[in-house]
Amino acid sequence: MKMNGVEIEDTYAEAFNTWVARILVTAVTERWARIGAEIAVGFGTTMIGCPGECGVERNVSSNETPDSRPGTISQITGPKKMMKDYLLLRIGQCLIPTPTASVWDALPDPQEKLDVGYRLRFFGDGFESQDNLFERKVIRIPIMSGDFIVEHSFGIRKGVAGGNFLILGETQKSALIAAEAAAGAITKVKGVITPFPGGICASGSKVGSKYKFLRASTNHLFCPTIKDKVPESKIPANVKSVFEIVIDGISEENVRVAMREGISAAVKVSGIVKISAGNYGGSLGPIHIRLHELFK
Amino acid sequence: MKMNGVEIEDTYAEAFNTWVARILVTAVTERWARIGAEIAVGFGTTMIGCPGECGVERNVSSNETPDSRPGTISQITGPKKMMKDYLLLRIGQCLIPTPTASVWDALPDPQEKLDVGYRLRFFGDGFESQDNLFERKVIRIPIMSGDFIVEHSFGIRKGVAGGNFLILGETQKSALIAAEAAAGAITKVKGVITPFPGGICASGSKVGSKYKFLRASTNHLFCPTIKDKVPESKIPANVKSVFEIVIDGISEENVRVAMREGISAAVKVSGIVKISAGNYGGSLGPIHIRLHELFK
Amino acid sequence: MKMNGVEIEDTYAEAFNTWVARILVTAVTERWARIGAEIAVGFGTTMIGCPGECGVERNVSSNETPDSRPGTISQITGPKKMMKDYLLLRIGQCLIPTPTASVWDALPDPQEKLDVGYRLRFFGDGFESQDNLFERKVIRIPIMSGDFIVEHSFGIRKGVAGGNFLILGETQKSALIAAEAAAGAITKVKGVITPFPGGICASGSKVGSKYKFLRASTNHLFCPTIKDKVPESKIPANVKSVFEIVIDGISEENVRVAMREGISAAVKVSGIVKISAGNYGGSLGPIHIRLHELFK
Amino acid sequence: MKMNGVEIEDTYAEAFNTWVARILVTAVTERWARIGAEIAVGFGTTMIGCPGECGVERNVSSNETPDSRPGTISQITGPKKMMKDYLLLRIGQCLIPTPTASVWDALPDPQEKLDVGYRLRFFGDGFESQDNLFERKVIRIPIMSGDFIVEHSFGIRKGVAGGNFLILGETQKSALIAAEAAAGAITKVKGVITPFPGGICASGSKVGSKYKFLRASTNHLFCPTIKDKVPESKIPANVKSVFEIVIDGISEENVRVAMREGISAAVKVSGIVKISAGNYGGSLGPIHIRLHELFK
Repeated sequence: MKMNGVEIEDTYAEAFNTWVARILVTAVTERWARIGAEIAVGFGTTMIGCPGECGVERNVSSNETPDSRPGTISQITGPKKMMKDYLLLRIGQCLIPTPTASVWDALPDPQEKLDVGYRLRFFGDGFESQDNLFERKVIRIPIMSGDFIVEHSFGIRKGVAGGNFLILGETQKSALIAAEAAAGAITKVKGVITPFPGGICASGSKVGSKYKFLRASTNHLFCPTIKDKVPESKIPANVKSVFEIVIDGISEENVRVAMREGISAAVKVSGIVKISAGNYGGSLGPIHIRLHELFK
Repeated sequence: MKMNGVEIEDTYAEAFNTWVARILVTAVTERWARIGAEIAVGFGTTMIGCPGECGVERNVSSNETPDSRPGTISQITGPKKMMKDYLLLRIGQCLIPTPTASVWDALPDPQEKLDVGYRLRFFGDGFESQDNLFERKVIRIPIMSGDFIVEHSFGIRKGVAGGNFLILGETQKSALIAAEAAAGAITKVKGVITPFPGGICASGSKVGSKYKFLRASTNHLFCPTIKDKVPESKIPANVKSVFEIVIDGISEENVRVAMREGISAAVKVSGIVKISAGNYGGSLGPIHIRLHELFK
Repeated sequence: MKMNGVEIEDTYAEAFNTWVARILVTAVTERWARIGAEIAVGFGTTMIGCPGECGVERNVSSNETPDSRPGTISQITGPKKMMKDYLLLRIGQCLIPTPTASVWDALPDPQEKLDVGYRLRFFGDGFESQDNLFERKVIRIPIMSGDFIVEHSFGIRKGVAGGNFLILGETQKSALIAAEAAAGAITKVKGVITPFPGGICASGSKVGSKYKFLRASTNHLFCPTIKDKVPESKIPANVKSVFEIVIDGISEENVRVAMREGISAAVKVSGIVKISAGNYGGSLGPIHIRLHELFK
Repeated sequence: MKMNGVEIEDTYAEAFNTWVARILVTAVTERWARIGAEIAVGFGTTMIGCPGECGVERNVSSNETPDSRPGTISQITGPKKMMKDYLLLRIGQCLIPTPTASVWDALPDPQEKLDVGYRLRFFGDGFESQDNLFERKVIRIPIMSGDFIVEHSFGIRKGVAGGNFLILGETQKSALIAAEAAAGAITKVKGVITPFPGGICASGSKVGSKYKFLRASTNHLFCPTIKDKVPESKIPANVKSVFEIVIDGISEENVRVAMREGISAAVKVSGIVKISAGNYGGSLGPIHIRLHELFK
């Protein structure tokens, strides 16, 4: 199958279920909501090693927020038992201190609720209170700059992580700009995040390693600089560089839409040879998203 | 003492020693170095709760980097025994994946060296190698986009955390813009970081709490919305909001310069009533930086 | 009338008809489309003195563009007889040179068409050609970086300029942040631009001056620092600063929506005393937009 | 001559003398100074067609500004007789309205002074005044947001325009990222600007055209998509795209430093085949900057 002259390999992305929370930061200006959200979801590229796999989803206008201020939606994903800690720490350490920020639950159809705001109340040292604002139960914590408002509870549900595709370019720079175009297109899709820096992973990994203690290592089959040492290398002759786009979302459908939009954007960039996807023989996840099916 | 008509309280910031690493990310453009650095030091506002207290220090031109590419310097601080883990995780999870990034040690006068790059080599799954580039010992790890280069070892030394001052404003917005001006001025000072979102802490804390299990809680003496409930409140009648600037650095002298530059910038903004500082009766740290001494 | 405790004065904005073009820049990434658009509409704050009153309207996703690349929509307004020159110059000098940019007509319901792309063809020095792409007639001009594509003709129609409101704040900083919130809210409204820096005018003007040769001068009735010298000053006792938001758009309805969204955002910011609007006794324009009617 | 494996052609950039002003915008935060400066120098890519060839030079810290606020330095260049108009219009229409902005002369060693601030005073409608601030003669104009301060006079001197080099890449994307790296490196050089969007010109031109009425047209010798139609084409077989970096500055020496830094940055990017320069047989300008001499 070809799109815009670029081969779309007949393969699949191997994704898996994870737990996801979706939080909305509002602030006096969109800029401050974004600054807070970005630092709160920082150091959150992968579940292996980070306190949650996280990302900013998008900015929303004041028409879409409870307190009618501009806002930014982010997602935090991880194992169920860790979700409460991740939310407590990321909201507590990064969003309570963000100038003028309030934090709201923004997850549709939650399967469970975690009393994260309620647990954060202790920071108020006895001066905190419960309140109802905009038909939501909130905690009000006096802080130096005024009052910090956080919703009492935050929903979590089973989402999907590990949606992905690979962009193979005839130069590193063609592949990089195509990856940037793809990541940019995905920022327009609701319900998904791309947790890596700038939405791009320069170092796609495989499950396992020859080093027994390591859970993931470089995906050597797709590393151009060692293709002469790897007989089974998947790097075509005219490819010098590969970037991976990794996508998490609140549902498989959202992730599929994002993959489709991202691939469509990448193949429009000159210098792209092929689109592939990362899979691991089924060892990682049960959700197989075939690239060709995205475009039917 | 007054500066530009604003009272500088005769008090001191209570800071303390901590361990600090200083890393340089270089990339094909300044933009990519910055994107990687920002996500790598994200979720790093405070030592209590985050894996290190971190921040971006500044961008540097290609004349100041080993590989003659543009770069961004960041700092990671924390307890000595945690420093290796923090560096391994933040570089491994966030900078190996950053498009075109390399990572270098940028700490002057280190007291010890941690073999962080050497430990990251395992990600190469046997295809990694050691090399010498620009008179530095580096690890070369093949990744999808090319090769990832990281310095073999990174220095650490005793630095200073908790430098701070408080900006008391007649409106929340005056205080916020003064805080932004102060944080901006500090970005021009070498050797320091401001770990909070946008360089500003909206929720300054005190050591301890009436809740015994809590190590830090809202600094109720400086919370304007509860001043009627706090007889010993330090909020003057014409103050509605307070923001704190927190500064960490590679030495006390760097932190002092940053405090002076930040305060000088803040008092130039109209609507500022007073500058104070956070201290805790000596319970937190042995380094007392008196505000008045900064301007002698 | 009060909104969120802020007085909305019972007055009107005096707007007027002007001619408007709406152009779409697409590029390989959203970032490059935006960079080109911003410089192309630069030096375009007011019809008096600038070659057109211009602004960026918003970024659009690849689903909304002819060539399925990301893009940025801008507006250029001015007297009818000048429109062709303005478009030729701004596209020719700023968008032909923008890396990877193409330029498309994005005006709904044009009243006339100007053959701007056709006239720009001469830059091709004989190597230019006409083509049909995505069901549009385009000019293809070979340039150093590849081919520059521009639509053959661009529509113009009668739009509305001079929509506005005034934000009166108890401090300059409260007024400024409210103005920023208002300008931000308006960026979410389709079909409008705010031509001033950051969407904000710090120096609202009136028609005419005591100096006969001057067509516009400072709106002294709303200048806080001279209110003691201006008996008829409209500055209330507790107001220290005023910012104006000026809005142009492809129709009066679009401008009305933008005014409503902008005012709604401004009154949510603490420290705002009053919202007013600029009018000139009917001497400037025949379109009177009453503030109170916006909220019926 | 080769640098980092990239051929540096033995040719020269043909530059010429022009008049230059250098203005400093200060504001309450660096962000507002930058926003004002960018719009004020917008629509200023080339002397042919724009009211001045302009650009932002760099941000400066409060230690480098008269009023000890953060600032942004820009340059405006053009024919001597037009300089006063350009300054009046760009400052008057774009910087008087910029929130919290003041404007200062920042040109070293001026050859003449233009009373631009003095002429702008009329906007004050009789409420303006002269003052001395920070040992400079200024005009104080009451505006809605407070007072606008502008220096009485601005220096101009003979500078240099048209410094340039060409980046020839094996793909458009390699050439584009190399151009971005080059433009970024030049932002660190004092005394120069790069007037094109993002510092990059995608459509380098030659003097004259087969169309007699046209002063400049596409540099067909360097256009890859028509090389089969141009027997004397200078496009090597493995080159698909060329970007030009154009540099103006307050002196030839500044422009030379910028060319050297820019070329050094470009050749470090993979996928670059050759560096050349634009010249026109001496028909444009008398200043010939040979590429090889830059690296002696």
